[in-house]
Amino acid sequence: MTAAPSPALDTALAYHRAWTGHDFDRAMTYIADDIACEAPAGRLQGAQAFRGFMEPFTHILTDSHLIAAFGDETTALLMYDTKTLPVESAPGAECLTVKDGTITHIRIVFDQAPFIAAQNASNGS
Amino acid sequence: MTAAPSPALDTALAYHRAWTGHDFDRAMTYIADDIACEAPAGRLQGAQAFRGFMEPFTHILTDSHLIAAFGDETTALLMYDTKTLPVESAPGAECLTVKDGTITHIRIVFDQAPFIAAQNASNGS
Repeated sequence: MTAAPSPALDTALAYHRAWTGHDFDRAMTYIADDIACEAPAGRLQGAQAFRGFMEPFTHILTDSHLIAAFGDETTALLMYDTKTLPVESAPGAECLTVKDGTITHIRIVFDQAPFIAAQNASNGS
Repeated sequence: MTAAPSPALDTALAYHRAWTGHDFDRAMTYIADDIACEAPAGRLQGAQAFRGFMEPFTHILTDSHLIAAFGDETTALLMYDTKTLPVESAPGAECLTVKDGTITHIRIVFDQAPFIAAQNASNGS
C-alpha cells in the first residue's frame, strides 16, 4: 500500500526494489557516501559500513513483501516482511531521509532475537 | 513528522498519545474488540490478549519520541523511539489498520534482543 507520490518515497522504493531484487550494486546507487544508519546493533557511518551490514542480509533473503510505504518531500517510511534462510518471517521497518534523490539517513527496526536464536541453534548443532 | 491528515492516522496518533501518556484505559477505546495483533513474539487475537501484551510495556516506559507518522484512509504507519527502564533506546514501528475510528489490526516491529539480554542479566545477578 502506498500513499500519494513523494520524491523521498520514489527513491526509497527504488532502493527497496533493488536490494530485495538482489541487485545490491544498484541499491548502493541510492545511498549517500556519508549515509548514517541507525540499526538494532548500533550506528553505522558511511556507505562502506552500511553495505557491510546490509548486503550480507540480501544473501540470506529468499522472499520479501512490502506491507506499507508512505512518504513526503524528504522522508519515507516503509514496513516489509522478509523470508530468510534462518528465519521464516523477519519483518522490518525503515525510516529514510532523502536529499536530492540520495538516501542520507536510515533508521532500521527489526527483531534480532530470531536471528540470534537461529545462530545459537546452529552453533549448538 | 506527519503527512497530510488521514482518518487512519488520526486514530493511530490518538491511540499512540494515550499509551505513551500512560493512559491505557483511554488507549483501549481505540482498539477493536476483535483486534488482531502481529507482534515479534507471535499473533495476539482479541482486545484482552492485546492489552495483556501492550499494557505491561507502558509500565516500564519512561519516555517516547515519534520519529515519523503517515497514513491514508485505512492504514497508518508509525515509527517511534521509546526509553524504558531495562532498555535505554527501544524503537518500534507499527502498521495499523483502522475501520470506523477503531484499530482492527496492528503489526508491531521492534527488537526483542535487548529486552531478552536485560532479562538474562537480571536473572544472573
